Amino acid sequence: MAVQTETTNTPSTVDLGPAAALSCRECGERFELGPLFACASCFGPLEVAYDLPSGSPDELKKRIEAGPDNIWRYAPLLPVPADVADKPNLNPGFTKLVKADNLARELGVTGGLFVKDDSGNPTHSFKDRVVAIAVEAARAFGFTTLSCSSTGNLAGAVGAAAARAGLRSCVFIPHDLEQGKVVMAAVYGGDLVGIEGNYDDVNRFCSELIGDPLGEGWGFVNVNLRPYYGEGSKTLAYEICEQLGWRLPDQLVIPIASGSQLTKIDKGLQELIKLGLVEDRPYKIFGAQAEGCSPVSVAFKAGHDVVRPQKPNTIAKSLAIGNPADGPYVLDIARRTGGAVEDVNDEQIVEAIKLLAQTEGIFAETAGGVTVGVTKKLIEAGLLDPALTTVVLNTGDGLKTLDAVAATSQATATIRPSLDAFRAAGLATS
Amino acid sequence: MAVQTETTNTPSTVDLGPAAALSCRECGERFELGPLFACASCFGPLEVAYDLPSGSPDELKKRIEAGPDNIWRYAPLLPVPADVADKPNLNPGFTKLVKADNLARELGVTGGLFVKDDSGNPTHSFKDRVVAIAVEAARAFGFTTLSCSSTGNLAGAVGAAAARAGLRSCVFIPHDLEQGKVVMAAVYGGDLVGIEGNYDDVNRFCSELIGDPLGEGWGFVNVNLRPYYGEGSKTLAYEICEQLGWRLPDQLVIPIASGSQLTKIDKGLQELIKLGLVEDRPYKIFGAQAEGCSPVSVAFKAGHDVVRPQKPNTIAKSLAIGNPADGPYVLDIARRTGGAVEDVNDEQIVEAIKLLAQTEGIFAETAGGVTVGVTKKLIEAGLLDPALTTVVLNTGDGLKTLDAVAATSQATATIRPSLDAFRAAGLATS
Repeated sequence: MAVQTETTNTPSTVDLGPAAALSCRECGERFELGPLFACASCFGPLEVAYDLPSGSPDELKKRIEAGPDNIWRYAPLLPVPADVADKPNLNPGFTKLVKADNLARELGVTGGLFVKDDSGNPTHSFKDRVVAIAVEAARAFGFTTLSCSSTGNLAGAVGAAAARAGLRSCVFIPHDLEQGKVVMAAVYGGDLVGIEGNYDDVNRFCSELIGDPLGEGWGFVNVNLRPYYGEGSKTLAYEICEQLGWRLPDQLVIPIASGSQLTKIDKGLQELIKLGLVEDRPYKIFGAQAEGCSPVSVAFKAGHDVVRPQKPNTIAKSLAIGNPADGPYVLDIARRTGGAVEDVNDEQIVEAIKLLAQTEGIFAETAGGVTVGVTKKLIEAGLLDPALTTVVLNTGDGLKTLDAVAATSQATATIRPSLDAFRAAGLATS
Repeated sequence: MAVQTETTNTPSTVDLGPAAALSCRECGERFELGPLFACASCFGPLEVAYDLPSGSPDELKKRIEAGPDNIWRYAPLLPVPADVADKPNLNPGFTKLVKADNLARELGVTGGLFVKDDSGNPTHSFKDRVVAIAVEAARAFGFTTLSCSSTGNLAGAVGAAAARAGLRSCVFIPHDLEQGKVVMAAVYGGDLVGIEGNYDDVNRFCSELIGDPLGEGWGFVNVNLRPYYGEGSKTLAYEICEQLGWRLPDQLVIPIASGSQLTKIDKGLQELIKLGLVEDRPYKIFGAQAEGCSPVSVAFKAGHDVVRPQKPNTIAKSLAIGNPADGPYVLDIARRTGGAVEDVNDEQIVEAIKLLAQTEGIFAETAGGVTVGVTKKLIEAGLLDPALTTVVLNTGDGLKTLDAVAATSQATATIRPSLDAFRAAGLATS
């Protein structure tokens, strides 16, 4: 399936730091590092296997803390060469972990509520993390075009990262995305192709393209580079724990699109435990979906192990993946950790966006409305314990999903520039 | 002019750290710290005078470097209480200083070109810096409503900061701002009032309101809190020098709206020299305006000391201040340092936004297009030396001024999800 062209490096010349091999998540078979994504034996998904650093936890902590203020501080735990920070890339990560005391009061959380705010990344979504790792894999394998299927955020992240890295880009999006995401994806100068269909159609098309000579020399960040790309989400786990003072949170609320982010955050937490960087104690992972695209939530509640695809219909377009590749793994993790998967409807998403903005000054994308809304719902249902430390992810930026709140977020009044006109507008003045 | 109400603190209880007094920029007369902005003797603008820290430069550097990754690392040099980092605020600053090698190649800069990218701030503009300082002044003076006149970025910054700080907000904007800025300003839940007029009309209205009982207990960040607010821009100077390894750049290109930012960056550089944190050597400051609002540029070129107001007509709305309060000081600084003031037209602004996006993956607001465009023009005119270290400011985010590039940043093609359709679209594939 993966294309190994003349322009790509042979595995022996590949330097991706501590990445040792690809291994099948289902059968465990190992493969040399390369642009592969499915097991040749059982078609299971491949993931990166590491030679993780030896040495004491304290030494590793010090090494990390002395690193740059971005994801490259965790280079010893990522599939990237040791000199990655010296190459032209967007240096995402180390975004704010905001102690959200105002929101905590509104939601009745007493154990400490934090928002991990990834709108602070270079293109204002968590996608900069995963793309930065994929760029290193693309370089290692000699790809000259960076590509992806995208619900919007990824398109911008790929366009920007490719521009800075000096790679060509060609990205594929559903033709009916939010205007902000379209313009942002196009402004970086790569090719941007609208596909008449939804995200799942775009994804299928990319899988076809990758098997065709047309796609030779192309690194699709979320297809043939997916095993590397996905590892970028581990950095969310690393940062959250480091920012909590090298401590695991008790509960995490994570949005689900393909489910990759949630599974990799769990992988990252497990690595920190294994390396002795955090104390080994229980944590619960909660998944958050929009009601209009809730295949994992539906399966969780029904007690199913498999996920039945849905046709998405929600304002949370960045989460609108009706056939989530990592859905079954998400179900495993939510059940194993004692968490849950829940969903909220579009109205609740908008309310939650506003609640976060009006309590903490954070303007989240619809996906952030989903996690905050689900947090509220889980507390009300008694599934999330308000007395425990809780981290809620905001993975994107409200400026990219203005339509969600535009109708109800306008000027309170429009007046002539006079005191009389202001008085007549009848606004409270204290 | 400034309103001292029953709810405000008396000066003796005001703790704003190293801020010792207000002093008149024109006649030097000193006043106790308070919500004042004009000299009672000569009506000159007031600015903050400090008791700057004593001790060795190395001690101060270490203290700063051990501080948080935001503007509060410079608390010893700002009008804020020592415990400022513990209070609820948005913690802006310490944004990326991007080494822009791709852009440098395009512009022929050989001496090192850097973009100080303030789109990484919480509400994605440099305004978060100045507002964060104003919030501390508002707290110190007992104000309960935070207000401003704004061309858009400031409105969002005030709304967000007030929400997080637990203050009421009421902000005033021209009624015809970009949709993104309106929605972003409104989403934080404060009052947002559109004024039928341009920014200068809004500003005049706010001055009226501040002298009226309607405005009692209101802290207007850029009127009665202006001396404090303005100091926030000094942090750009501190960060640039620290990020260059405690070194002054040779040349800076800074946008001009009111001119406050440029004058405060110069003040910050002078403080670093005085404190021995950087070597005392020459630097040149260049001001950048849009042709459609270029009162300072026109005055500079004509050799005038005063600035004749203009009626703005430019896509760079965040710089569209036709009667810039600090214009004469900008002229002084540009001339004193051997810099210049230049302007670019709307077409050049759009080109420059795209150039920055396509070389460095940074999607700038129109104001960033102005500075990059002016940099190009200054190099071509031989006024900016390409062999010297140059820092260009991007003070805002492209997502807030989508209209500027939307017409020319759209999908390259829209196709059915098939290889045949992709082939027929005729895009380059390598």
